[in-house]
Order: sequence, then structure tokens, then C-alpha cells
Amino acid sequence: MAKVAVIIADLFEDSEYTEPAEALRQASHEVIHLGLQAGQTVRGKKNNTPVAIDLAVQDTRAADFDALLIPGGYSPDKLRADPQAVKFVRQFMQSNKPVFSICHGPQLLITAKSLEGRRLTGWKSIRQDIIYAGANFIDEEMVEDGNLITSRSPKDLPAFIRACLAKLAS
Amino acid sequence: MAKVAVIIADLFEDSEYTEPAEALRQASHEVIHLGLQAGQTVRGKKNNTPVAIDLAVQDTRAADFDALLIPGGYSPDKLRADPQAVKFVRQFMQSNKPVFSICHGPQLLITAKSLEGRRLTGWKSIRQDIIYAGANFIDEEMVEDGNLITSRSPKDLPAFIRACLAKLAS
Repeated sequence: MAKVAVIIADLFEDSEYTEPAEALRQASHEVIHLGLQAGQTVRGKKNNTPVAIDLAVQDTRAADFDALLIPGGYSPDKLRADPQAVKFVRQFMQSNKPVFSICHGPQLLITAKSLEGRRLTGWKSIRQDIIYAGANFIDEEMVEDGNLITSRSPKDLPAFIRACLAKLAS
Repeated sequence: MAKVAVIIADLFEDSEYTEPAEALRQASHEVIHLGLQAGQTVRGKKNNTPVAIDLAVQDTRAADFDALLIPGGYSPDKLRADPQAVKFVRQFMQSNKPVFSICHGPQLLITAKSLEGRRLTGWKSIRQDIIYAGANFIDEEMVEDGNLITSRSPKDLPAFIRACLAKLAS
């Protein structure tokens, strides 16, 4: 069983949180919600899905978790405006523990300057950002590069979730 | 009198459209709304402000306008997923005609690969994207670099609008 941090803010892409989180729990992993403020409820951009923030990101550290999930939507853009969230993500990437990022999730990895030389995918609107960040953008439903597993959009969720669960089982 | 194109999609930052558009019209400039689909009504993210799209971006070209305004919010992220919108913006930057970009507006300029060697500002969340794109990020309320005028957020609107109007009058 892994302790998986989900870093999340308002306007996340609902299914990119709900489906991986459900699959992780069904596989007996623990899901902990990190955000900008403990006790706050953040909401998804399509279905208004509520998520209660368990811990403020500034009160925790990468060492306390086994893996990190970054759902997409506009949540990553809000998180990366916060230096503590960026620092947490950078620590996670430096630790080489699994990082699962979908859609706009790589925006946080760009601001954390964690993508140089990496292979990944993401939502098409951030393709050029990923390339400028020194990474190789791959237009595939799931890209695995060391600790980093990435997908493009909700359509890719089945492949994304399969890869995340396999990584935690390995 | 200048013919000013506003390139805009859903979830734009309301005031970053309404305030410059009103100031442009009061100064007798013409404002034309370009979007992904002619006849569509797009809406702002805070106040649901409606904007009717006059022309689809694929049915027009930079040569038809004197200046370009790119409001922020999540509108630029939607526009830059469209290759025709990106091409239009690239043509505009290549033409050296005035481009006014605020908040998340530079996201479109990044995807158009139009920022190498330029000086500009933008919303703090896209700071690292701008740097990776080869530009110099300046944390000031208004940055003017040749044809390009940029600001960071709604708070900067007075300085932004002053600079845009002065550019059109010069």
C-alpha cells in the first residue's frame, strides 16, 4: 500500500481526479489531498466535484509520501503560482518517487524546472511549453519515463490509471 | 482610428477585455472580436460577460487589422490549442504591428514561438514558461518592447490601457 499525495486546487478537471483516486483506493492505496489551505474545499471545473484539502502543501514534504498525482484542468496553473507548491513538486521529482501527471499537470513540473531531458506528454495547449522546458513531447495516450507517468486528457484515463497502478505495484 | 482585433475565447478575464475595449472605443478605435467560431458568444470567467464573435480567426488574417489585443484568463489556453489562432498571432508578431497582451495572454505568443529575445511581463504563473521561451520576464505593471505591450493582471489595467492608447496614437 502506497501513500499517494494528490496536489489539487479549484477548477481541476473532475474525472482526472475522481477516476485515478477511486482506482487508487480500490487497490488499497491511501489518498491524501494537498492544497494551498488545509480544510478548504476545492471544486472541479465541469461537475463542481468537491475535494476537501487534508493538508496545506507548505506543512508537508515529499518525504512523507510514496507517490504524487497531479490532476489537470486549471488547478495546476493555480498551484504553480504558489512557491511552496512548486518546491514540493520539485522535491518529489528530485526524490525519484513516482509522479503521475495528466493534461495540464506538467505546468507544475515546468515551473519546478523538473523536465529538462525528460520524455512526456500532456494536453496539446501546453505542448510548446513542454518543448521549451527542454523535454521531448510525445503525442501518445501514456508515456512512462523513469518515475514519471503522463497522459494527455480524460480520454487517456484507462491507460493512465493502468500505468499508475502498475508503477505502485512494481 | 485603428482597427483592433481582440482574440478571445471562453473563460477570459472579464475586466481584461471590458476595460481596454471600452477605452479603445472611447478613443474612436474600432474593436473586432475574433474567435474560434463566428457568431458564437463566449463568456468571461468571473462575471460571465458575453462577447459575440464577429469573425472566425481562420477566415481572417493579420493584414486586415492595425493592432491585436489578447485578454487573459483561460481564454489564451483555449485559443492556443487551435493552429489557426496560433498562426494568426504569429503573423501579427511578424508584421511588427502593435500587440497588447495581459495576464495569461503571452501563452498564445509562446505557442506562436514569437517571444525569443523579447522583454515582457505576464501573470506570475506563466513566468517560467516565458523564460523557457527565450524571453526576459520583467515584473513591472507595464512593459513596452517594440510592438509588444504587456501587463500582469487586472490591477495593471490603468497603466496597460494608457500604454495601448499611446501606442495607437504614435
